[in-house]
Amino acid sequence: MAKKPLRVGMIGYGFMGRAHSNAYKQVGQFFPSQHEVVLQAACARNEGEIKKFADQWGYASVETDWKKLLDRKDIDVVDVCTPNNLHKEIAIAAAQAGKMILCEKPLAMNAAEGLEMVKAVEKAKVANMVWYNYRRIPAVTLAKKLIEEGRLGKIFHYRAKFLQDWTIKSDLPQGGQGLWRLDVAAAGSGVSGDLLAHCIDTAVWLNGGLQSVCCMTETFVKERMHNLTGKVEKVGIDDACIFMGKFANGSLANFESTRYARGHKALYTFEINGENMSIFWDLHDLHRLQIFDYKDEGKIRGWKSIHVTDNSPDHPYMANWWVPGLAIGYDSSFTHQVADFIQGLETGKPQGPTFRDALETQHILDAILDSAKAEKWVEVPKS
Amino acid sequence: MAKKPLRVGMIGYGFMGRAHSNAYKQVGQFFPSQHEVVLQAACARNEGEIKKFADQWGYASVETDWKKLLDRKDIDVVDVCTPNNLHKEIAIAAAQAGKMILCEKPLAMNAAEGLEMVKAVEKAKVANMVWYNYRRIPAVTLAKKLIEEGRLGKIFHYRAKFLQDWTIKSDLPQGGQGLWRLDVAAAGSGVSGDLLAHCIDTAVWLNGGLQSVCCMTETFVKERMHNLTGKVEKVGIDDACIFMGKFANGSLANFESTRYARGHKALYTFEINGENMSIFWDLHDLHRLQIFDYKDEGKIRGWKSIHVTDNSPDHPYMANWWVPGLAIGYDSSFTHQVADFIQGLETGKPQGPTFRDALETQHILDAILDSAKAEKWVEVPKS
Amino acid sequence: MAKKPLRVGMIGYGFMGRAHSNAYKQVGQFFPSQHEVVLQAACARNEGEIKKFADQWGYASVETDWKKLLDRKDIDVVDVCTPNNLHKEIAIAAAQAGKMILCEKPLAMNAAEGLEMVKAVEKAKVANMVWYNYRRIPAVTLAKKLIEEGRLGKIFHYRAKFLQDWTIKSDLPQGGQGLWRLDVAAAGSGVSGDLLAHCIDTAVWLNGGLQSVCCMTETFVKERMHNLTGKVEKVGIDDACIFMGKFANGSLANFESTRYARGHKALYTFEINGENMSIFWDLHDLHRLQIFDYKDEGKIRGWKSIHVTDNSPDHPYMANWWVPGLAIGYDSSFTHQVADFIQGLETGKPQGPTFRDALETQHILDAILDSAKAEKWVEVPKS
Amino acid sequence: MAKKPLRVGMIGYGFMGRAHSNAYKQVGQFFPSQHEVVLQAACARNEGEIKKFADQWGYASVETDWKKLLDRKDIDVVDVCTPNNLHKEIAIAAAQAGKMILCEKPLAMNAAEGLEMVKAVEKAKVANMVWYNYRRIPAVTLAKKLIEEGRLGKIFHYRAKFLQDWTIKSDLPQGGQGLWRLDVAAAGSGVSGDLLAHCIDTAVWLNGGLQSVCCMTETFVKERMHNLTGKVEKVGIDDACIFMGKFANGSLANFESTRYARGHKALYTFEINGENMSIFWDLHDLHRLQIFDYKDEGKIRGWKSIHVTDNSPDHPYMANWWVPGLAIGYDSSFTHQVADFIQGLETGKPQGPTFRDALETQHILDAILDSAKAEKWVEVPKS
Repeated sequence: MAKKPLRVGMIGYGFMGRAHSNAYKQVGQFFPSQHEVVLQAACARNEGEIKKFADQWGYASVETDWKKLLDRKDIDVVDVCTPNNLHKEIAIAAAQAGKMILCEKPLAMNAAEGLEMVKAVEKAKVANMVWYNYRRIPAVTLAKKLIEEGRLGKIFHYRAKFLQDWTIKSDLPQGGQGLWRLDVAAAGSGVSGDLLAHCIDTAVWLNGGLQSVCCMTETFVKERMHNLTGKVEKVGIDDACIFMGKFANGSLANFESTRYARGHKALYTFEINGENMSIFWDLHDLHRLQIFDYKDEGKIRGWKSIHVTDNSPDHPYMANWWVPGLAIGYDSSFTHQVADFIQGLETGKPQGPTFRDALETQHILDAILDSAKAEKWVEVPKS
Repeated sequence: MAKKPLRVGMIGYGFMGRAHSNAYKQVGQFFPSQHEVVLQAACARNEGEIKKFADQWGYASVETDWKKLLDRKDIDVVDVCTPNNLHKEIAIAAAQAGKMILCEKPLAMNAAEGLEMVKAVEKAKVANMVWYNYRRIPAVTLAKKLIEEGRLGKIFHYRAKFLQDWTIKSDLPQGGQGLWRLDVAAAGSGVSGDLLAHCIDTAVWLNGGLQSVCCMTETFVKERMHNLTGKVEKVGIDDACIFMGKFANGSLANFESTRYARGHKALYTFEINGENMSIFWDLHDLHRLQIFDYKDEGKIRGWKSIHVTDNSPDHPYMANWWVPGLAIGYDSSFTHQVADFIQGLETGKPQGPTFRDALETQHILDAILDSAKAEKWVEVPKS
Repeated sequence: MAKKPLRVGMIGYGFMGRAHSNAYKQVGQFFPSQHEVVLQAACARNEGEIKKFADQWGYASVETDWKKLLDRKDIDVVDVCTPNNLHKEIAIAAAQAGKMILCEKPLAMNAAEGLEMVKAVEKAKVANMVWYNYRRIPAVTLAKKLIEEGRLGKIFHYRAKFLQDWTIKSDLPQGGQGLWRLDVAAAGSGVSGDLLAHCIDTAVWLNGGLQSVCCMTETFVKERMHNLTGKVEKVGIDDACIFMGKFANGSLANFESTRYARGHKALYTFEINGENMSIFWDLHDLHRLQIFDYKDEGKIRGWKSIHVTDNSPDHPYMANWWVPGLAIGYDSSFTHQVADFIQGLETGKPQGPTFRDALETQHILDAILDSAKAEKWVEVPKS
Repeated sequence: MAKKPLRVGMIGYGFMGRAHSNAYKQVGQFFPSQHEVVLQAACARNEGEIKKFADQWGYASVETDWKKLLDRKDIDVVDVCTPNNLHKEIAIAAAQAGKMILCEKPLAMNAAEGLEMVKAVEKAKVANMVWYNYRRIPAVTLAKKLIEEGRLGKIFHYRAKFLQDWTIKSDLPQGGQGLWRLDVAAAGSGVSGDLLAHCIDTAVWLNGGLQSVCCMTETFVKERMHNLTGKVEKVGIDDACIFMGKFANGSLANFESTRYARGHKALYTFEINGENMSIFWDLHDLHRLQIFDYKDEGKIRGWKSIHVTDNSPDHPYMANWWVPGLAIGYDSSFTHQVADFIQGLETGKPQGPTFRDALETQHILDAILDSAKAEKWVEVPKS
């Protein structure tokens, strides 16, 4: 039985370009399906760099103009791995060209852009997904299962943090390859769009929508040399962002992100406190899920660390990997996402987060930045 | 050389009455000084209970009226262990009677009361202290030392939480012995005054004053039976309280407390992120301090867990206890506080937190509760 | 109802003299009974030191000759806190004088001495106990409960370690105050009698007797200056000791102790692997017990950390202390032991470890040292 | 610049067949070199299974007779992933056929077999390596670096454990696909060859050779149904194995492995105690290395957990992966091994463990099993 090719056109070749490419190459071995992913073309303006990338990763061809990539008939799905400010234009054009789209997060620079993108993919009826990959870390997916099984009872609290420390150095420039995340023109915002976007996506998925938020932001380093202009320029991004809020289910939100938390590399954590069970997860030990189950006998109640590595249906995705006790890495979350995207194609049940799902995150991001600017509580618009 | 007696008059006999009494009995063995603490009298309205307490703990006499206790010439220091709503009246009267005063935290129901108390002790020139005991957990005192030595550099973030889960049951009554903390008339507030007060005291001590705050509170269980009236009454306390804010040194505050965090018994944690070092402490493992030192070589940088149990001057207070590796308990923090109070008497350098120190915490507590009510940012008044 | 006095005669004033004295002073407040412990006399050869100790701890009188102490009619119980080489003589004389005896561990220099001591107390019918205090850390007592409830099923493995690092310095002298543990004449052995004795006592209590053992020892620093003679002398103690063995229940033993494990202050750990449950405990976090319960659902199986601090009957001894989440220290294990000793007197059911119980540990200690010397497997004699 | 093909002939398709294949596919993207790995042929007796495997993993062809595979001119390197009892015959034939060989661990059923294999590859002068992959977990490689830099000083102790729990069920059969590890005829031994072999390889690499050992083994389940014969047969493997010993550098060894440690899936841990530094690693959190550095100031000494995920030369292999904080999985160790094997080819400096290196592990395995049988100490033969 011949497999159906799924020919990928990759736009971008940075950190995410590599992570997605690894997933495309792995998915057929670990999650075989009726589709075969084909690395058809890689695209970027810099011809030398994209050729090198294509060679290393096995892309069959290169393009230096994304519009040409979209024109090609031999591309089924476009993967948008550019800086955030290009997502909208490319994704809308890709939809119009009838391509399926896998778009890096955050979906857009803001909700207005995001809405246009949603309309475009829904009008074109093309499969679409956003790379909020943390949903598919097995421990996080297990958390989702426990919640769906109703084990937590009424939820009182949801806390999330994403702490890093890589921008403390004030002589780090903004802008350019590898540093566009510090340039507000390319990124749209700082830690809110880059890091809190992940926290918000997971939260909405696990705990439902946020109704209102109150936020503060801070830019610790006010000016940085700009890599593209060579001049010292005002920094436009948020270095740190804290917000509190209320979920529709009545639980309280406490979210924080910063790139100034010395000692934390990529410490994304969330904790949910329910009436009957609490759950904690932590990206630095991503293969573990911690739970406290109030239904345990009093004498032996405590926080339990589940090593989510059993190759059995108990532990999401793990039956397809190794044997119990052997952890898989961060990279596997992308492999899982491609596997689920393909499953969505084959079953006709699209797997989230779709562009529409991701639009809700954009609304919340807008609301927190508005709140920080106005220094007051803000209602989150309905998605 | 005969020791100078320090005759204690204890008012109250609950959890704190016991904790303080244990400290009074231990201090002479572990921190010998020129003073000898004498358990002179214990006082409470319920004669049977206070006699039983005095008998068990070795108080030489009992009183059932605190005013009579204050009249006695054989009492040097009054320990106020009553519910919060009685602190002001008793403390002011004790000051007027020329007694030294050790007052349970929070100092008062609000800053206005607190200010009256400060004025009274300062006018009477009596030694005074508030039982914010966590300052004197050896690991916390070590944190203070590391900060004073300038190891952290510029501070970016201060995070504190105090999470409990004991009031999730909606059939728990409010008011009465052991449950007055749920009764707003006796306690003044909920988790803010009971738990965040500790977090704030430590924070101000370690990181300086807060300038502005923005807070939200929630009361999850709206009505509870009142133990004293026997009727179901509206709950007046805050069950949960989250606030963000800005410290005078420019660092950002993220504070949270709740009694609805399933799985956490008394999880007071704080984390400070400085340019060069970060520090974390956790009441559930109170004998450990965790630090990340950026000055370590890159290859071996990481979070270090210091087991603060060396009987050497390196580890505050520990030279007076056992041998390395053997942890002391929560209770020891009170013993250390009495030892330091006595040292203050002997050296003429009063040890904090004095009533005046504790007034700053009251101002912040007022500000956060005002902010929560008004749903806006509030400036913290100067103390 | 007047309490019955239990008048203590303490012999020694070192680390253990202090730890026991603290327990005597605390027990009446936390574990009230029909007895009242009275610190009647403290005894040591050095009159200045013992007077100072008695003064600080509140002993009513001092003696400089332990025989005189035994002659006194106003002493009910003798506490033997001397170096190991004096245990036998004093304990036997105390038994003959009709005194109850609380003897520091290990019971004796070897099993032959221990047997004489057992015979003496059994002949004299005096209450007796050995200070293997770790049995009464609440988490360890909880482990005992879980085992007695049959939760573990068949036991496969028992592992214990006691790791320290304080003798790595080769210029540390042997012998004399505070350092007699390095002098084989005073201590009888090194880490085996000092540290493994604790591990063995707990193991026999939790898992039953050992049938056969095979052991190796090592003395890393071969010569040390002797504090008493002033000369460099051969070191006679074992610096490190590893043994494997077989328990009567068929489980395998792996025990190790050393004072050369850099980074470990007093890391006593044990782990028991049963068919249905495993248990782990660790002195460096003594308030926690870790368990793995195979009866949990597959999806949420994991190691659970029980914070053994609930003031309820669920957590042994803790109902008499503070509130959930507030840890007690190492010292409390002695307080619990005195409480249980008194309970044994009042109920007529002696609480272990009695001298006879402790004799079994001596037999195992003899067997491992014999095995190390002969470099072969050795059967453990029946106690 | 065209790459030089490295055409792999894989024999076997089980757990290891998959793990190695994943590495072959990944290596070119993450560790580009002058070689290109080509999945040329996969071989197994079961034609249907091997075709399915080849199809899924992208092998260009299949063979059902390994001798035919060795005859092929288009195979450069043979990967031996069969049960242990076939290693010798295949590897020797492969050497004679002039193929490079990557052989699964343990090298052989015993040292005698291993020696023949060593002679064969050395005579044929073919590149050879054994898949002791744990050396190339970045945290373990970092441990090697710290040791090579002389940071530990004199070594006192080396402890290793490999604990699992998957064979506790007595109705698990022995033999056949997926269960040949329980069949002594196929595996040669139980946990010693399967698990302790890893511990020993790492230990010899990090700490040098072992001089003498004393071992005990146990088979808890004495009889199991054999999958191939359908009969209940005596179990010939060791279910558990504990040994102590002495390294050539004077340090003491304590090793243990079992498949009856409830709660542990694949808990390989090692700890090295040196005069100046101790090191601990744990497969369940494989991305962390824990160290205690005595050179730290006394006040801030403690165990440090290094999150070995910096994409910098500080952390071995990690510069080729993602960004700091993002852990890679177990599988990456194989990718690193292939990368190093290729580097060995290109630099002419073979990377270990070669067959000769692995022979030393076989000698130690023989010695411990001899010791267990004879119940006495055994000298380890010189390799």
